[in-house]
Amino acid sequence: MIVGIVGLGLIGGSMAIDLKRRGFAEKVLGVEADSLHASAARSIGLADETVSLEECVDRSDIVVVSVPVGAAVGIVCQVLDRFQQAGAKDKIVIDTCSTKEQITLATHYHPCRGQFVSTHPMAGTEYSGPWAAMPNLFDGRACIFANPGESAPKALKTIEDLYDVLNMRPIYMDASQHDVHTAYVSHISHVTSFALALTVLDKEKDEKHIFDLASGGFSSTVRLAKSSADMWVPILTQNRDNVLHVMDTYIEKMQEFRRAIADFDEDAIRGLITDANRIKKIIR
Amino acid sequence: MIVGIVGLGLIGGSMAIDLKRRGFAEKVLGVEADSLHASAARSIGLADETVSLEECVDRSDIVVVSVPVGAAVGIVCQVLDRFQQAGAKDKIVIDTCSTKEQITLATHYHPCRGQFVSTHPMAGTEYSGPWAAMPNLFDGRACIFANPGESAPKALKTIEDLYDVLNMRPIYMDASQHDVHTAYVSHISHVTSFALALTVLDKEKDEKHIFDLASGGFSSTVRLAKSSADMWVPILTQNRDNVLHVMDTYIEKMQEFRRAIADFDEDAIRGLITDANRIKKIIR
Repeated sequence: MIVGIVGLGLIGGSMAIDLKRRGFAEKVLGVEADSLHASAARSIGLADETVSLEECVDRSDIVVVSVPVGAAVGIVCQVLDRFQQAGAKDKIVIDTCSTKEQITLATHYHPCRGQFVSTHPMAGTEYSGPWAAMPNLFDGRACIFANPGESAPKALKTIEDLYDVLNMRPIYMDASQHDVHTAYVSHISHVTSFALALTVLDKEKDEKHIFDLASGGFSSTVRLAKSSADMWVPILTQNRDNVLHVMDTYIEKMQEFRRAIADFDEDAIRGLITDANRIKKIIR
Repeated sequence: MIVGIVGLGLIGGSMAIDLKRRGFAEKVLGVEADSLHASAARSIGLADETVSLEECVDRSDIVVVSVPVGAAVGIVCQVLDRFQQAGAKDKIVIDTCSTKEQITLATHYHPCRGQFVSTHPMAGTEYSGPWAAMPNLFDGRACIFANPGESAPKALKTIEDLYDVLNMRPIYMDASQHDVHTAYVSHISHVTSFALALTVLDKEKDEKHIFDLASGGFSSTVRLAKSSADMWVPILTQNRDNVLHVMDTYIEKMQEFRRAIADFDEDAIRGLITDANRIKKIIR
């Protein structure tokens, strides 16, 4: 199988590594718009060749579109258009985006919609670019298949096999349901980390040594603030309504805490903390 | 040297382990108000004996008060009173609390103030109790000495030696400065985690499977929400003014983000994220 990967960053690059060494891909063709990333990806050995998008589509059996979600919508449509023009009925394209509603809407009426499988492998780190790619990134994590009923059964099966090789656990859901869930268990965490970083970096202007005391707990809550704007601007705008809704609930909880602390209301603070402690049952 | 440890939890218990095996303490006497914790501490072997506070003070060279900050203020004063009554001029008491202003104010005029060294070993996990104690917890981390000029030089030197055995890096500062700094790089992180846990747990009422998608990033930002109310209620009330100030800045940053997302203002979102990314230079 020849696998084309558009975007050799953290996700695309890590897929390239494991699909190749685990024998699913006999050859990996890379497409990388950024010339620095392209030469890094070649020198790291993520792709056997880097080629144009068109050449990649024409030579690959599966095209993985792994670029920030703003660009992915357009690229997936371009790929489907080329499938149609070439009458290439056995080729498959997948995306790996963190928001699913817009990309599934944009492709819904495409004549080749069955050849598109919309997925979200739930793995990653706060780093990006070909340098961030690593083996075993996906092992044991969940992969969402969004609106799987819109893909042709054969295409879906092939992509299930691909993620099985990556040792991922498949979960099937509606695109809209996916976007609500990820707003709660992924997108809000990034916003709270960004806000925390901004809060403390502001203070650093007056207190040069403030980070001398930074604890492991602080690093843990702020680490996602290293995440790239290229990735997160389109996620936050594409999933705007869900993200705003979660942010409003979150800001309310912060205000509730603020009132309890301002009033020295120890019972209320204790109640909030004890309630929050229920997370122990869920997160190891 | 006989070391008495009041409170055999995460911090006190971990100190007991390393001070004993590294030869600083020939014997560890434990004081534990909670009878379950006391028997657990004995069965784990954290202390050679568990005794009353009075016996502990009378038999120990150094008394480490390692209980939640609400109780610690009173216990340190009791220990100093007993030093005075017994004319025990060579004994030392230290605390390990996460807020320093109230405990240094409360002891400021005590006739035995020189025998008290106020410290904050900046190490920990989100777990508590004797079961959470572990070897090497303090290695390589910072230990704050608050208002070190109020301790007798000899007492200060002995406690510097104690923390040197724990492989901690000493930092000296005013109690009030400490409390401002920890509000920024520790206390706010706990509040944001509690609020995040509450936000998502609320949603779980309607969406049973929401945590199926929880990513590593979510776990990282929410992990501090496991922290105990016993520890955090007194920290948040004792450091109320600093914590409220940081929370207000933080809520403003969240509101700024909210406005940018609501307006689909990609430039503003990109600006905030790029600004937050400066944390890369500080946190590995």
